[in-house]
Amino acid sequence: MEASDRDIIAGNAAYYWAFSTRDPDAMARLWSSSAQVTCIHPGWDMLVGYDAVMKSWRDILGNSQSPSIECRNARDFVAGDFGYVLCHEVLDEGVLIATNIFRREDGAWRMVHHQAGPAASALPGPPAPVSGSVH
Amino acid sequence: MEASDRDIIAGNAAYYWAFSTRDPDAMARLWSSSAQVTCIHPGWDMLVGYDAVMKSWRDILGNSQSPSIECRNARDFVAGDFGYVLCHEVLDEGVLIATNIFRREDGAWRMVHHQAGPAASALPGPPAPVSGSVH
Repeated sequence: MEASDRDIIAGNAAYYWAFSTRDPDAMARLWSSSAQVTCIHPGWDMLVGYDAVMKSWRDILGNSQSPSIECRNARDFVAGDFGYVLCHEVLDEGVLIATNIFRREDGAWRMVHHQAGPAASALPGPPAPVSGSVH
Repeated sequence: MEASDRDIIAGNAAYYWAFSTRDPDAMARLWSSSAQVTCIHPGWDMLVGYDAVMKSWRDILGNSQSPSIECRNARDFVAGDFGYVLCHEVLDEGVLIATNIFRREDGAWRMVHHQAGPAASALPGPPAPVSGSVH
């Protein structure tokens, strides 16, 4: 694994920005459209394929009940053109923990998979995403 | 992403075999020892580094209360020497859903990350791992 990659941390931050601003177009752009993408929303089954994942985002982001979300404690793990970011997701209802997998396509990190589930507990951490790991 | 890779599905099955037989040595061998590995057990915070992840496995596998586990509906997503498997984990207490990330090292798929969390519900599926996706 390589040294911490600011670009993948930025890609991860873009995901949470699109989520928190409920911007389905931004969300659609940051996912890979060439790869088979997958997503496991909390309490959902796995979604496979760009169309299924984008439909889920349109439903979630278009729902006025969808939660606010803030990313904390992001750490990246990169090997070549593939990498993943682990982070906490702070919502009104509690804290989740996420695995976000990215693939570098034409120089840009694009999301290929997301899973979030309950974290151990509310966790302290700086409000901005932080790149922490050096491998 | 490439066509379904039987070897990564076999690597994923080896993980669940080590878990279900409570074999810490087999578990230690199938994780990458050269990469910075990470793990998010259900309800735990992220663990970073081989030593921290292996300590967690010794604790879990050495606990007589640790659950039995069965992998179902495994699907793999591979790009070069990096890939991941999504699958359901059937336990006595319910069904989890997992993201397992692997890296190919000297020709063998080694685990670099695991996250499991609650699945939507009990899910039907064949008892043996099945490679399903073609990308």
